[in-house]
Amino acid sequence: MKDLFCMSLRSEGNKLYILDQQKLPFEEVWFEVKDISDMIFAIKELKVRGAPLIGVAAALALAHSAQRDTSQEKLLAEAQALREARPTAVNLAHAVDRVVAKLSDRDSFMKLSEQIFEEDVLLCESMGNFGATLIEDGDSILTHCNTGGLATVGIGTALGAIRKAYEQKKKIHVYVDETRPLLQGGRLTTWELEKLGIPHTLICDNMAAVLMSKGKIQKVFVGADRIARNGDFANKIGTYSVAVLAHHHKIPFYPVAPITTVDVHCKSGQEIVIEQRESGEVKGFGNVQWAPKRASVFNPSFDVTPVEFVNSLVLDRGVFTRSDLKNDILVELST
Amino acid sequence: MKDLFCMSLRSEGNKLYILDQQKLPFEEVWFEVKDISDMIFAIKELKVRGAPLIGVAAALALAHSAQRDTSQEKLLAEAQALREARPTAVNLAHAVDRVVAKLSDRDSFMKLSEQIFEEDVLLCESMGNFGATLIEDGDSILTHCNTGGLATVGIGTALGAIRKAYEQKKKIHVYVDETRPLLQGGRLTTWELEKLGIPHTLICDNMAAVLMSKGKIQKVFVGADRIARNGDFANKIGTYSVAVLAHHHKIPFYPVAPITTVDVHCKSGQEIVIEQRESGEVKGFGNVQWAPKRASVFNPSFDVTPVEFVNSLVLDRGVFTRSDLKNDILVELST
Repeated sequence: MKDLFCMSLRSEGNKLYILDQQKLPFEEVWFEVKDISDMIFAIKELKVRGAPLIGVAAALALAHSAQRDTSQEKLLAEAQALREARPTAVNLAHAVDRVVAKLSDRDSFMKLSEQIFEEDVLLCESMGNFGATLIEDGDSILTHCNTGGLATVGIGTALGAIRKAYEQKKKIHVYVDETRPLLQGGRLTTWELEKLGIPHTLICDNMAAVLMSKGKIQKVFVGADRIARNGDFANKIGTYSVAVLAHHHKIPFYPVAPITTVDVHCKSGQEIVIEQRESGEVKGFGNVQWAPKRASVFNPSFDVTPVEFVNSLVLDRGVFTRSDLKNDILVELST
Repeated sequence: MKDLFCMSLRSEGNKLYILDQQKLPFEEVWFEVKDISDMIFAIKELKVRGAPLIGVAAALALAHSAQRDTSQEKLLAEAQALREARPTAVNLAHAVDRVVAKLSDRDSFMKLSEQIFEEDVLLCESMGNFGATLIEDGDSILTHCNTGGLATVGIGTALGAIRKAYEQKKKIHVYVDETRPLLQGGRLTTWELEKLGIPHTLICDNMAAVLMSKGKIQKVFVGADRIARNGDFANKIGTYSVAVLAHHHKIPFYPVAPITTVDVHCKSGQEIVIEQRESGEVKGFGNVQWAPKRASVFNPSFDVTPVEFVNSLVLDRGVFTRSDLKNDILVELST
């Protein structure tokens, strides 16, 4: 296999590393993925995260396993286990299914993993360019979670669009939801925006509404983990809240995702099963726990935003309005 | 002065202590207030907090200062400094102004401080009883921040109403917003509800919307730090967000406060000046910092909820509808 690098993945010879995103922004630690169980662990612990990125990471992990002469049967079992590591993010299942289909020919199996990696860069470029057309000079943009170089192989989804607008010299400001409980906004999006030099302000999730009411936010850009055929979509917990608030304040709301995030087998958001995560994440952060030990907790990983809150959906194939979505454009694009 | 005790204040002889609420729920540390600057520090650091409680705490601190034979002139300066320690919470100014008016007679000055302490217990009882009439058997209630025994001398404002309903054997469940950045919900409301045995679930602030959309929340109860003449009110940051979400999901939204929270000199919420707090609170919690050091931050202490989001306002004087508020009931009650 050829060597592959991006902000958060490194494939060098027979070694595969992921940047441990749970340690950012203070430590940049590379975690070596020695086998599939390491990758499953890394996905579950959000050391590697972002729907597009985990799809690519899973394909690479399988290619590395194939390099170690793993039997056909074991590879299939590994693929199945990987596929279930993050059930809501459909890119993972897509990427795994694509490589598994080539399993009988090891060479093309490994080539396809490389190709999936490289494709993601182009998908991001395309989403970024389409998304940037929606951003005007002077806009302040709210974003949720992390959807940049740390969530993809390329420049990102929602954050890629913001980056493109900035590179086009549009004067913009980004408000970053910290995104409890795992603080991907506070830890990762701020880190990326600082590196890129894009002006930004970090807020707690409960502060977005008051900024909206004061006219400080002109657009909302978010990512997506699974998009149903009708345009409903699952994304990081808190996205639905932002969507309702944007709707109330008449602020355009745009999810940005590659076509690989669309699940045409899923008719609507009601069919999307949401993972619950462990309670310690809500009772504190990392080793710091601030709530009483016995407190009961509700901790869904994602929520579902119905299509009526979507002004347009930005895909790598273009910008699609709500009426495009009603006319089954997603089925058309996926076939 | 006679000895006075409540969950978070202790006045014993010439000693005054406050329970350090920044150390809850894991440590119950009593902080000795040796002089007015200690009390100002405790208020600014939220060691003592809750609009009703800081009013009482300030009055007691002035009484203790008077016990130390502080000169009239110095007491006046101390009162002024205390008054400014938390500008948004109007109960503080009210309590300070009430005792200052008696300054010429030290005995009645100190008696009035005791009386303000005892009054708060009765105000809470009354708010609790009125508020509980709005809670039905089987309700799940969302609350924000902490409005219980830690925020008042008595049983609380919003949480007092919830407690009364529970004591009336109504089967209820409380969803507790953790309330970033200072986590008064996650640390304090959970701690109180656990002590009271009231069933509850802790959530991150960004999870309330999805619970509402699934029909899991029937009522929202919050406190208030300053209520304008027209019914607009300031409360802990995030309250406005909850109000908009409740409005969208057609869930009744009730602020609960004593009449001392009404500021008739304030025509509407637009006149309420909101304190900004320091950026470290958003970049982390306590000594744990997770965001990049240089990140810019927006950190308002409070936000303003316009009266159109208020279904009814619960005061110690009764339950008042939005049309009562339009008919200047607050001016009438305050005169």
